[in-house]
Amino acid sequence: MKDLRKAPIGVFDSGVGGLTVAREIMRQLPDENIVYFGDTARLPYGSKSKESIIRFSRQIIRFLKTRNVKAIVIACNTATAQALETVRQEFDTPIIGVIEPGARAALHETKNKKIGVVGTEGTICSQMYTRVIHEMEPGAEVLGKACPLFVPLVEEGFTRHHITEEVIDIYLKEMKESEVDTMILGCTHYPLLRSAIMQYMGEGVRIVNPAYEAAMDLKKLLKERNMSNENEEFNKYEFYVSDAAEKFKQFANSVLPYNVETIRQINIEEF
Amino acid sequence: MKDLRKAPIGVFDSGVGGLTVAREIMRQLPDENIVYFGDTARLPYGSKSKESIIRFSRQIIRFLKTRNVKAIVIACNTATAQALETVRQEFDTPIIGVIEPGARAALHETKNKKIGVVGTEGTICSQMYTRVIHEMEPGAEVLGKACPLFVPLVEEGFTRHHITEEVIDIYLKEMKESEVDTMILGCTHYPLLRSAIMQYMGEGVRIVNPAYEAAMDLKKLLKERNMSNENEEFNKYEFYVSDAAEKFKQFANSVLPYNVETIRQINIEEF
Repeated sequence: MKDLRKAPIGVFDSGVGGLTVAREIMRQLPDENIVYFGDTARLPYGSKSKESIIRFSRQIIRFLKTRNVKAIVIACNTATAQALETVRQEFDTPIIGVIEPGARAALHETKNKKIGVVGTEGTICSQMYTRVIHEMEPGAEVLGKACPLFVPLVEEGFTRHHITEEVIDIYLKEMKESEVDTMILGCTHYPLLRSAIMQYMGEGVRIVNPAYEAAMDLKKLLKERNMSNENEEFNKYEFYVSDAAEKFKQFANSVLPYNVETIRQINIEEF
Repeated sequence: MKDLRKAPIGVFDSGVGGLTVAREIMRQLPDENIVYFGDTARLPYGSKSKESIIRFSRQIIRFLKTRNVKAIVIACNTATAQALETVRQEFDTPIIGVIEPGARAALHETKNKKIGVVGTEGTICSQMYTRVIHEMEPGAEVLGKACPLFVPLVEEGFTRHHITEEVIDIYLKEMKESEVDTMILGCTHYPLLRSAIMQYMGEGVRIVNPAYEAAMDLKKLLKERNMSNENEEFNKYEFYVSDAAEKFKQFANSVLPYNVETIRQINIEEF
């Protein structure tokens, strides 16, 4: 039992976006060890089929299990939307996604029960946010919008650029004109556009980032199963990618509150 | 020998872009059979490492060889830039890329020997166009520019949109102000922005699309090796992808001059 407590948390994403979730876990669960995997060889996930996302997720979970993780957080909305239900049935390791926590946080914030969700094509078309919100609150209204250009704009560094403001206007005009009072940033890249989106939507709309709530869920799960690490030794964070480790390292060091020195590259197709 | 003549041409790309090259082969070599592969599960290639692009290209070539192709065209600038030299040494099947043909066409067009190249990060950073142009004409000047947002803009359908015009201005301002008189569209997606780019660059700049010249090179290669198909039976085009066959089919039918009915999906990681 003691060994399981010391075991790391597995966290994965299609690339760097999930580091915002890892950062939240580091903050809220400072005694936990983390193994992070970013599937940089096959990103982005947003426009790929459910079938492929399930296959990729299975390979990543098999890899994380070789690192003896005690629990897994899918820090990617697309992978949560397309693969969580399937992989939960296939693996015995407990798996948390970002959609249930995001839905719960939005329902906590909203006053008029009209919630907007922005995400990738895969996340929005899956309607998973709508389904989960309706299970929690059947009377809620959910307005979803896929925003495929947000990720490339963030990756090109256009987070505060007039082009990005115009793209936000194209994608979110309808949502702004609706009665939505709460909006979920349903893609881990989008928090990097948070201030531009907040400014556009105005003060009347609360912006929800599922990362915080996902870390809370993890904390609760570990407590319930008596798996929390109470060891106060220096904790260990390991980072793996399927491509371009050096580029990932730069981004990781700009997002995380400590200096990442080693990123290991693996061939995920072998798992 | 007769069998080899009837064998198909293998054509591959990270996704749909290479269909513009396949279309050119269909036009110029109407008696040839084609097996096309689009790596839609792992696209885009543009920002991924040389190492990964070589691994992906090897798998695809191994797959195309199971279809008994007599020659292969890498209809992707990034894969040509990162992998052509390596895979040419490893496989006995003749392999043609799009960079040599594009470079030759540009040198044929230019009067002042100042040539611009636009492409993905991988293509531009590899400096392969510069190297190949200098081998052909040491006195030429080459100005390269990576344009990472062009592909997502095309895929979002913004080919004639003021946002795209603004992005063109951001990327190509320096090239417009230079003395470049010829510009290579060094990514198979970019011909879809051809009219917007031509309008921006003005009449003084010739725009070169390597697809036409690549098909010419293929024709020449087949003749030299006595491998041209002289059979006038109904020719066969086969299409394979690694993900989302239905979406590919829609795009294929908008690009190709005949109705594509079957797209087969395979797991390329097994090759």
